[in-house]
Amino acid sequence: MSLESLKPFLDPHSIAVIGASENPNKIGGRPLLYLQRFGFKGRVYPINPTRTEIQGRPCYPSLDGLPEVPELVVIVVPGDNAVAAVKDCAARGVKAVIVMASGFSETASPEGKAKEQDMVEAARAAGMRLVGPNTQGLANFGNGAVTSFSTMFTTEPGTDGPIAVVSQSGAMSAVPIGLLRQMGLGVRYSLATGNDADVTVTEMAAAAASDPVIKLLLLYLESIPRPDQLAEMARIAHERGVYVVALKAGRTDAGQRAARSHTGALANEDRVVDAVLERLGILRVRDLASLVSAAALYLKGWRPKGRRLVAISGSGATCVMAADAATFAGLQIATLNPETRVALDKLLPTFATTANPIDLTAALLSNNRLLSDILPIIARDDAADAFMVGFPIAGEGYDVPAFARDMAAFAGTTGKPIVVAASQVPIASEFRSAGLPTLPLEAEAIDALAQFIRHAELIERAKQRPAPTWSRPQPRTRRGERTLNEAESLALLAKAGLSIVPHKLCRSAAEAIAAWRELGGPVAVKGCSSDITHKSEHDLVRLNLDAEEEIRKAYGAIETAFATLKARFDGVIVARMVKGLREMMIGAHRDPIFGPVVVVGEGGKYVEALPDLKLLLPPLQSADVISALRELRCAPVLAGVRGEAPMDVSALARAAAQVSSLMQTARPEILSVDVNPLLLASEGEGYTIVDAVVIVEEPG
Amino acid sequence: MSLESLKPFLDPHSIAVIGASENPNKIGGRPLLYLQRFGFKGRVYPINPTRTEIQGRPCYPSLDGLPEVPELVVIVVPGDNAVAAVKDCAARGVKAVIVMASGFSETASPEGKAKEQDMVEAARAAGMRLVGPNTQGLANFGNGAVTSFSTMFTTEPGTDGPIAVVSQSGAMSAVPIGLLRQMGLGVRYSLATGNDADVTVTEMAAAAASDPVIKLLLLYLESIPRPDQLAEMARIAHERGVYVVALKAGRTDAGQRAARSHTGALANEDRVVDAVLERLGILRVRDLASLVSAAALYLKGWRPKGRRLVAISGSGATCVMAADAATFAGLQIATLNPETRVALDKLLPTFATTANPIDLTAALLSNNRLLSDILPIIARDDAADAFMVGFPIAGEGYDVPAFARDMAAFAGTTGKPIVVAASQVPIASEFRSAGLPTLPLEAEAIDALAQFIRHAELIERAKQRPAPTWSRPQPRTRRGERTLNEAESLALLAKAGLSIVPHKLCRSAAEAIAAWRELGGPVAVKGCSSDITHKSEHDLVRLNLDAEEEIRKAYGAIETAFATLKARFDGVIVARMVKGLREMMIGAHRDPIFGPVVVVGEGGKYVEALPDLKLLLPPLQSADVISALRELRCAPVLAGVRGEAPMDVSALARAAAQVSSLMQTARPEILSVDVNPLLLASEGEGYTIVDAVVIVEEPG
Repeated sequence: MSLESLKPFLDPHSIAVIGASENPNKIGGRPLLYLQRFGFKGRVYPINPTRTEIQGRPCYPSLDGLPEVPELVVIVVPGDNAVAAVKDCAARGVKAVIVMASGFSETASPEGKAKEQDMVEAARAAGMRLVGPNTQGLANFGNGAVTSFSTMFTTEPGTDGPIAVVSQSGAMSAVPIGLLRQMGLGVRYSLATGNDADVTVTEMAAAAASDPVIKLLLLYLESIPRPDQLAEMARIAHERGVYVVALKAGRTDAGQRAARSHTGALANEDRVVDAVLERLGILRVRDLASLVSAAALYLKGWRPKGRRLVAISGSGATCVMAADAATFAGLQIATLNPETRVALDKLLPTFATTANPIDLTAALLSNNRLLSDILPIIARDDAADAFMVGFPIAGEGYDVPAFARDMAAFAGTTGKPIVVAASQVPIASEFRSAGLPTLPLEAEAIDALAQFIRHAELIERAKQRPAPTWSRPQPRTRRGERTLNEAESLALLAKAGLSIVPHKLCRSAAEAIAAWRELGGPVAVKGCSSDITHKSEHDLVRLNLDAEEEIRKAYGAIETAFATLKARFDGVIVARMVKGLREMMIGAHRDPIFGPVVVVGEGGKYVEALPDLKLLLPPLQSADVISALRELRCAPVLAGVRGEAPMDVSALARAAAQVSSLMQTARPEILSVDVNPLLLASEGEGYTIVDAVVIVEEPG
Repeated sequence: MSLESLKPFLDPHSIAVIGASENPNKIGGRPLLYLQRFGFKGRVYPINPTRTEIQGRPCYPSLDGLPEVPELVVIVVPGDNAVAAVKDCAARGVKAVIVMASGFSETASPEGKAKEQDMVEAARAAGMRLVGPNTQGLANFGNGAVTSFSTMFTTEPGTDGPIAVVSQSGAMSAVPIGLLRQMGLGVRYSLATGNDADVTVTEMAAAAASDPVIKLLLLYLESIPRPDQLAEMARIAHERGVYVVALKAGRTDAGQRAARSHTGALANEDRVVDAVLERLGILRVRDLASLVSAAALYLKGWRPKGRRLVAISGSGATCVMAADAATFAGLQIATLNPETRVALDKLLPTFATTANPIDLTAALLSNNRLLSDILPIIARDDAADAFMVGFPIAGEGYDVPAFARDMAAFAGTTGKPIVVAASQVPIASEFRSAGLPTLPLEAEAIDALAQFIRHAELIERAKQRPAPTWSRPQPRTRRGERTLNEAESLALLAKAGLSIVPHKLCRSAAEAIAAWRELGGPVAVKGCSSDITHKSEHDLVRLNLDAEEEIRKAYGAIETAFATLKARFDGVIVARMVKGLREMMIGAHRDPIFGPVVVVGEGGKYVEALPDLKLLLPPLQSADVISALRELRCAPVLAGVRGEAPMDVSALARAAAQVSSLMQTARPEILSVDVNPLLLASEGEGYTIVDAVVIVEEPG
């Protein structure tokens, strides 16, 4: 990732626009209008063979006539003309081009894809970087380099600020800016990368995160083409203390279909995206509202210490809803220290509530000092990590400027996060002007606070873990694959150190009987074949056999069943019957973008129907798996309920880590592992893998 | 419920204010200011012994000097003075009083409760109605009768409209009004009932719903003291086509604690509240934002026919996020008819997407007609039930008035719900002025649409079911209760027609052996005692016994165990071993407010640890239970997965309905039923109840 090569996009000395228009509402007119309006200080060259002047600037027929080779060229002309213009720029030593036209790889047409490839090759051969095609362009409100045609900027004051919005979509590079402005927040960058043909959204995000002004990076993604860059970008951001919040759309089948026709995005498996972003300390949000809602909190330099919330309001209902919202958001209502309660009782009227949430009641209207008076008392209480003060209604009779001033001072003294809820626009503005993050409603304020706290925790966890080892995805040469039969699969796992059920693969009834005698006690008898993975459904499993005649009959029946199925018959497995407390599973497969992923959770036959699984990314340590197991629905049962013994989650975690390492190191490469069931025993008693299917790459 | 008696609150001819103040920012000053400002046409009497004139009106020392007995009296004075004022009003024939002071039953103090009781008794004895105490008051913007001290109304234009907000909390009677105004919606009623000492929030809501102007009723509740009134209110509302949306706060433990100190609310079991509101066709929302978000949709008179959504935007990202949001909200992305696709392909540029969601791309900026041109084509397609049109960015270059006009016409033609997403304030206003429900972001717009559609479906379902039979909760005389032992519990269920396991209660080893012979085949042997309900934990259960000696040993061991436990020993149950496909449960108990409730779901020993349950309200029919079972997590397994037979959910549903009817009719009254496990067999094979505990009332 060469961030230096992106500098001409963000801080160019000279810009030409090929396809410039006099009309500021045309795509070719807007960038010129914006460069003017937002005070770009560099040189600007409109190019259009039909004009001599455009928007008050001298216009040139082609790159030929310019007094210099421009650093950045914005290409507005469509189709083949765009391709020609890119080649022309490349030939002349232009450093950076933005291609705005659509109709390339985002369409289903092979011609579109070929044209895009053509442009990229020309650019790369010349060492020129290319943003787009199918992009709305870029904006830097720090220096006025606004090479975008977004309609949003027709009404944009261009207030610079410590936030960057980076997006594959044009609209989503601009919409958050409008929302942030409504919250009184300035934004420096609005960067849309379109089809990511050369410069990717992650590269551009890394460039923005490298700007010392930036404290918050908001990403809109429809695909993650380069996990290596994503990880590098997160590293750069966190090194600089920049928070990264991401909205990755196309979570659902319907959304992924829409994304394919929008930016031609390759589908990412959504739970892999969840795990990847979490691993990198990037907070994933579900929609645009939550992309921006906590923005003001990120800019304050607060370092949250915990999740214990104190809520204060003059409205009892706000207190009730705040308590509900805190619980839903995973925050705790702090239990204030007794001294705090005593001090509050002295100050507040008897019908006020001095337990947290603190309800000042309508008494606040009669005595505006109440709020300011209690703040120093609460500031001394170490039971509180964060604060929400709700003003569902303020205005005449309330000294809002005093509230805002005293709360801002309080925030400065304590250094603890505080957020205000105020839905009346002028009241909210007053709090925002005092530097207090303010959202309309208590639940929104608490959600934003919880998001900020969770995000800080996420980054801490990400920093403590080894960096992921993703590389640039390579087009995979389609090689053969081979499904190992159960005996081979178990052998492979045993070799890697996992605990498998004692068993024998037998090719005759006599061998099976001998195996039963050797294993001792009741056994399971199962048909073994790489052709058939769902044995039970084909009636190829007999359980709890403990007599010679039973074994002989079972062998015969299974052999016959295979003949009827016309399936490959590798023999019969005779395995000791094992008891466990719960059926678990460990799975693994290769994501086309992110490589090996491991899944762990409840096993048994209803894995698909009643999924209770967590997806994890290698390299995996036992501790990572243990944390993940704690988030399973069945976690209470694993921990032991109603007097039952806790189960051996450490052993299960070690097993998952071993599978993870197998996925990374085994040669020939393992394509997938499906361990199910793994019978988990009580603490200290380990587990036994009873069935498994492994698929390996078949070289050549 | 006498709605006639509430008329003086909403449409009084004369109003007196006891404790009137010259200062409009005092509680006693605000109502006078508002009556003036909002144009109340009736007579107004300030009462304050220290003044002769207040806010330009003649002031009276007491009720004595007034030229008439006022219909409505607002009492602002606190504590004992408030009680005295109530008694004075009652004595003089006042019809209605509003008591604003706090410090009564919402505090923990017995004196506060006693004072409140005193006021209520005085009012009731005189046939006078009382709102409050601890209330912010009432507002009717239809006639200017604004007897509230809410600060919200200092900035309120008082625009009348078809919405009523009714709330136990003062702030929450007003905050929604501010939010609705920001959405351009007028509101007629803002009614706060405070402690609900006499007039309840449900009674007041019924009065508002009876006003022919009202189309939407928004409720804020912290408790539901009167289920009978709630049901009656819902009936009145639905008869008139009024939608009722409720925010019942105090969902969580923390929230319920806060509610107790706010309005002294009795805790309602939250899942009972869910079921109650659903049963009545009242949509429950989680927070204030969703209380108001769909308001505009409710006012259009649309009758949604289905859940198939068409999303249209000039932004591909909006299309992707709309598809995600629709899936999350339970809507389907409609598959447009082939003729529609052909017609759209003709109109739109090749890089646009004519599959739904329809992405017009930035081509819309070049050709503003695109949107208006496609509307008539989509209007003809019967595959679409509802529409979302997203304008993430509009402004210069976009003919927003034309978009708004053509979409409003489209909505008129199709009669199908349509919602707009536009986050820029002036753009949103333009769409709202054209009568189009508009929310800032696509996900919010689609959530609102989905809420409206779900609500319409909910009301239809509620109408098709028999009305609930809740009565006014009576203080329950604490009578005795008796836990039936397992044999008695099973007998009671068998008598009611449920299928129980064949078994015998035996008082000796010999009896147990005889029972085993009679039952034939393997049996379970279980200690029977009304003292001990968790038998397994005390090792009082032996399974799969099938030999005389085993039975004898088991009997002896269990008898000894009881002696050690010093528990009552009612004998030993010998029961046939039964196989089922899945362990289910049926529970029932009596809610102190709503009476009998039934719970059905997964059984087994992890009912509490891994709950997968639905709560239902009598009277129950099998069809109700079958619908509920479909919402269980284990529903796919009940339906049959991976080639397994479907289970006998009809039989389970009948059983739950029988338990429900038992809870309603059995004498002595049944206090609770706990059937677990119920072994469910495959379709047509029924079920067997293997264990049960019933607790009955012990009369006298």
